[in-house]
Amino acid sequence: MIRFECDYAEGCHPAILEALTQSNFEQHPGYGEDAHCDRARQLIKEQLKAPEADVHFLVGGTQANATVICAALRPHQGAVAAVTGHINVHETGAIEALGHKVLPLPSDDGRISAEQVEEYCAAHYGDSTHEHMVQPGMVYISQPTENGTLYTLEQLRAMRRVCDKYGMMLYVDGARCGYGLASPANDVELSDLAALCDVFYIGGTKVGALFGEAVVITNENLKKDFRYFIKRQGGMLAKGRLLGVQFETLMDGGLYQNLGKHAVSLALEIRKTFEDCGVSMLYDSPTNQQFPILTRAEREAFSEKYAFSHWQNLEGDKAAVRFCTSWFTPEENVRLLMEDIRRICKR
Amino acid sequence: MIRFECDYAEGCHPAILEALTQSNFEQHPGYGEDAHCDRARQLIKEQLKAPEADVHFLVGGTQANATVICAALRPHQGAVAAVTGHINVHETGAIEALGHKVLPLPSDDGRISAEQVEEYCAAHYGDSTHEHMVQPGMVYISQPTENGTLYTLEQLRAMRRVCDKYGMMLYVDGARCGYGLASPANDVELSDLAALCDVFYIGGTKVGALFGEAVVITNENLKKDFRYFIKRQGGMLAKGRLLGVQFETLMDGGLYQNLGKHAVSLALEIRKTFEDCGVSMLYDSPTNQQFPILTRAEREAFSEKYAFSHWQNLEGDKAAVRFCTSWFTPEENVRLLMEDIRRICKR
Amino acid sequence: MIRFECDYAEGCHPAILEALTQSNFEQHPGYGEDAHCDRARQLIKEQLKAPEADVHFLVGGTQANATVICAALRPHQGAVAAVTGHINVHETGAIEALGHKVLPLPSDDGRISAEQVEEYCAAHYGDSTHEHMVQPGMVYISQPTENGTLYTLEQLRAMRRVCDKYGMMLYVDGARCGYGLASPANDVELSDLAALCDVFYIGGTKVGALFGEAVVITNENLKKDFRYFIKRQGGMLAKGRLLGVQFETLMDGGLYQNLGKHAVSLALEIRKTFEDCGVSMLYDSPTNQQFPILTRAEREAFSEKYAFSHWQNLEGDKAAVRFCTSWFTPEENVRLLMEDIRRICKR
Amino acid sequence: MIRFECDYAEGCHPAILEALTQSNFEQHPGYGEDAHCDRARQLIKEQLKAPEADVHFLVGGTQANATVICAALRPHQGAVAAVTGHINVHETGAIEALGHKVLPLPSDDGRISAEQVEEYCAAHYGDSTHEHMVQPGMVYISQPTENGTLYTLEQLRAMRRVCDKYGMMLYVDGARCGYGLASPANDVELSDLAALCDVFYIGGTKVGALFGEAVVITNENLKKDFRYFIKRQGGMLAKGRLLGVQFETLMDGGLYQNLGKHAVSLALEIRKTFEDCGVSMLYDSPTNQQFPILTRAEREAFSEKYAFSHWQNLEGDKAAVRFCTSWFTPEENVRLLMEDIRRICKR
Repeated sequence: MIRFECDYAEGCHPAILEALTQSNFEQHPGYGEDAHCDRARQLIKEQLKAPEADVHFLVGGTQANATVICAALRPHQGAVAAVTGHINVHETGAIEALGHKVLPLPSDDGRISAEQVEEYCAAHYGDSTHEHMVQPGMVYISQPTENGTLYTLEQLRAMRRVCDKYGMMLYVDGARCGYGLASPANDVELSDLAALCDVFYIGGTKVGALFGEAVVITNENLKKDFRYFIKRQGGMLAKGRLLGVQFETLMDGGLYQNLGKHAVSLALEIRKTFEDCGVSMLYDSPTNQQFPILTRAEREAFSEKYAFSHWQNLEGDKAAVRFCTSWFTPEENVRLLMEDIRRICKR
Repeated sequence: MIRFECDYAEGCHPAILEALTQSNFEQHPGYGEDAHCDRARQLIKEQLKAPEADVHFLVGGTQANATVICAALRPHQGAVAAVTGHINVHETGAIEALGHKVLPLPSDDGRISAEQVEEYCAAHYGDSTHEHMVQPGMVYISQPTENGTLYTLEQLRAMRRVCDKYGMMLYVDGARCGYGLASPANDVELSDLAALCDVFYIGGTKVGALFGEAVVITNENLKKDFRYFIKRQGGMLAKGRLLGVQFETLMDGGLYQNLGKHAVSLALEIRKTFEDCGVSMLYDSPTNQQFPILTRAEREAFSEKYAFSHWQNLEGDKAAVRFCTSWFTPEENVRLLMEDIRRICKR
Repeated sequence: MIRFECDYAEGCHPAILEALTQSNFEQHPGYGEDAHCDRARQLIKEQLKAPEADVHFLVGGTQANATVICAALRPHQGAVAAVTGHINVHETGAIEALGHKVLPLPSDDGRISAEQVEEYCAAHYGDSTHEHMVQPGMVYISQPTENGTLYTLEQLRAMRRVCDKYGMMLYVDGARCGYGLASPANDVELSDLAALCDVFYIGGTKVGALFGEAVVITNENLKKDFRYFIKRQGGMLAKGRLLGVQFETLMDGGLYQNLGKHAVSLALEIRKTFEDCGVSMLYDSPTNQQFPILTRAEREAFSEKYAFSHWQNLEGDKAAVRFCTSWFTPEENVRLLMEDIRRICKR
Repeated sequence: MIRFECDYAEGCHPAILEALTQSNFEQHPGYGEDAHCDRARQLIKEQLKAPEADVHFLVGGTQANATVICAALRPHQGAVAAVTGHINVHETGAIEALGHKVLPLPSDDGRISAEQVEEYCAAHYGDSTHEHMVQPGMVYISQPTENGTLYTLEQLRAMRRVCDKYGMMLYVDGARCGYGLASPANDVELSDLAALCDVFYIGGTKVGALFGEAVVITNENLKKDFRYFIKRQGGMLAKGRLLGVQFETLMDGGLYQNLGKHAVSLALEIRKTFEDCGVSMLYDSPTNQQFPILTRAEREAFSEKYAFSHWQNLEGDKAAVRFCTSWFTPEENVRLLMEDIRRICKR
């Protein structure tokens, strides 16, 4: 079976294992206050051009989302998100567990617009009973989204403006951040995220690390006491060095960027091959996830040899599926897939 | 500086790094449903002689405590614990974050007795206004305790009886479990914990792993839907295989037990040397943490060469400190320390 | 100004004030354990034909919803509700405050169907990643709904069946229960609610009381320790007698039913008058809330003399508004309104 | 049976029932935005000499405590309180339900000192692992305390200073506030509370109202959005006018003060009579609760005729009990009790 069903099926890039092995017997203070974390923080802040930012390393994405949102919102506030957003669908209520409602907005392709948020906030404050409703306190978006799509720089700037207008935080979930940065369609750099967001995270788990997400905070109010929140959420790793070593490796010499490019260029070849064969894509994704719409016969033909995810039933016997590349995906596997696309999807 | 201040200053036992490296490019399903987790679960259940138990792997201790307690208690219930217990002192309110009060009982050496719990529960239900107070729903203890002490099998049996009498769960935090099992003073086997507790965990982080705790559930009611709780608390590791590989290595061929023995036998040599020099210990600890009571001059003398923790000020210029061994502690370092004890602590 | 904008603008039925005055200097134990509460509970259970039910009196509806839902659900579970349901929209996240997600289903007229719930649950358990999503643990519906509509007995039975199939509680919010019971279109008696629900409440605040809701629990598991939950949520009224005296008065001699009838018969006269004039209603409401669709000119004409609520903008200059009667509404006011409807809404 | 066991056994002062009756058919907007609430707020602010304060009316004390503390603290913070404090003992974990730990300090007589708080905070911030512990974010005290004792103005000022030093809020629970103000030993006026606290509440339930507590906020940050918190906690009374009418009545013409004086002067007569007979008091209470230490024979003798509360077992057969007067207590009852004290307590 050739696997395209997710971007976390393997361990990590070998350079990381090597760095962990090399540093294994070093003695370090715990909880993220070691030299490796310090250096990783330094490397990240350089890339962000944000020397004043705070950087914290957490183990996983749901933990990062819950910790950030809990620290950022007052209890009566909720996080505005796409109805398809990870916090609204795939975190078993981790945000609600900490007392906050997710305020879902409809979305076609995983994105929400500044206009939608503006309309939502105007409706909230325009309603004389707004104290009976959860106050929008943050906008949560993902870059790339769950559907592989990307916000443009102009869209992010518009979102920042509406956040400023209504006193909301802007938070970007960057679980697949590396695959967004590497896209030819992307015009948002890490330094733009640092300039426009109050807080965001750079995902490691899905982009070559064993695990780990780097939370970047630029909002002064949110910086205060953030480590208490990490501990309260159970996210303070005793051997924090493990996170430091991994991000040090990823951020040094452009490894993170290279891993992203590898995955995205292969994904775009897959997409092009599908489209050349007349297959439509459910979303216009310029990143490592691709969502071709296939007939049942086509899906069955592919599934003899390939693992991929079912995404959404469509009319007739059609359905969208997801093919996902990663930092690891062997080029040889993609070549085989492309041949099979040409064979199976004759239209 | 020779380090005795904690048991998590290094990475992990080399066999673990080797196993991670060897399995790195294997492709596995995520979230703990892979073959390594399965095998690790099997090995643990064999040692527990509890084939029906459920075993879940979590990244850290605070996460394990919060997840277990949230799943075990109804909202109006609290966890009875020693006032010095980890959940009462050192988790930044992670238990309260999920809505539960910790109900503290006084403790001399980290332990609480079945009699104390009996008295507490009798007082609760005997008070006609008990519905105005948090209901005791669980007893939380650590084996070994924060102070290195151990419950005897008879003490655990008595605790089980009082839990049964009042319909409470019994939960054992085994962050340093390996150092308890290895103690010559210990008469509680893993299979006893499985037989007497509703739930407990076997600590990996402090006993040779990079990270990881194995939560064992024997109570049927608690088994149901436990994985939802792991995810809700942000503890569902995407690459769950990392936990599987580590526990597989620790549990295979007695590595876990050997690492415990190494640390404890060295700690007991240190203790004996102190006592031979007339130094009293704050607690009667038969495990890897030792708490000698030293004068200021003695503390200063040791601190030129050794790292150790300040624990508690006592009368005059005396204070208790903590020397901690681990799976890693080189024997050579202990020999040097023992020589210095004999030199510094002349009484 | 003649007021039709809500059903809680006045104090209470005079018989209640009289009963409070008469009992004022009686001395009673606090917290709902007095003779008035006992008698009120007895009267309610007789009407329910449910001698085994538990009845608790709470001050308000949001408090009742939060307390019931917190007691009924395990932490990883959510409450399935209409997207327009009170708990989803108008309780400032009181349910989320206690850790639970509201799982919204689309709704045309305030109701959701057993088929929708079936489909939702089937999709949840059919998804292999369901542990990453909030588990549906309860169905929350209102009778009448926020839009004045009523569930039929057959619809409730179907909902009960789907709840049984998926192990969910069925909870009915009866804030306006009295106005449902009094509707000529209603075929659901209080005894049906007792037979079909795990828990529901009979609303006092909007049906003649100063305040107060009677929560009825028939599910044995939910009965246990419920008073702890009331106290924990801050809902244990010190002078619980006030709730007992009010429900005693409402439930004795059919007062509650009569107050409902008064309001509903007036509301239906208003509706008929609108419809006779060719005005459409947004919802087919057989209870005390009516939602005529008016032009701007009509709305302006009415607002010179009447207070009513804006409900929803529709196409062109049309909008739905709400006229609401209550236990108090003077017949004379309705007669005036009907005359003005005939005058203003000439079509 | 002559009742001295609590201060909430009756309904309310007749003037309140009269005002409720008189205003019953007035039509008012809901949720505390009516003319009665406005006037009550005005009267309170005049007494406080704090025209800028915000005043909110809540139904009960636990609700007030939970709402205030949730609004005042960030999630990682706890409330420092006497171990005997109401929030630590008698609210079924309502504070923990919202995610906050109560940080208990030992107390002899219900009070804690500024020195204790200083020491606690210094220890917290002095510990290098303080991020692993709940941060003290507020001092919670009661005036009078659960034991009838009073803070002096100087003690409150000292507490304010330590709160300022460590960036903590100062919150005073005034459930029995009226009985403190009326004490001859008291030197703290309402205006002092307004000047020294960030937030406090003036208790109605125990001082002549049917129910109701007036929360006063002087801290600007805490004012913002407070009504959202009331609703979220289920404390937004639909017919808020009921609270307005009651506080209007209590605060107009000194009724509240007079009710307090009535109770306290009777309590002090009881105390003096006990002491004249050689009976010691457990606490030096200058308010409406008195705690004589009686032998078993004495307790049995009193219990033939009087209801009072058991408080605490002491050595031998001695125990402290509580006699409690209220705004209602008939003087005749106190005269009878005093005669019996002289008869029973011959020493």
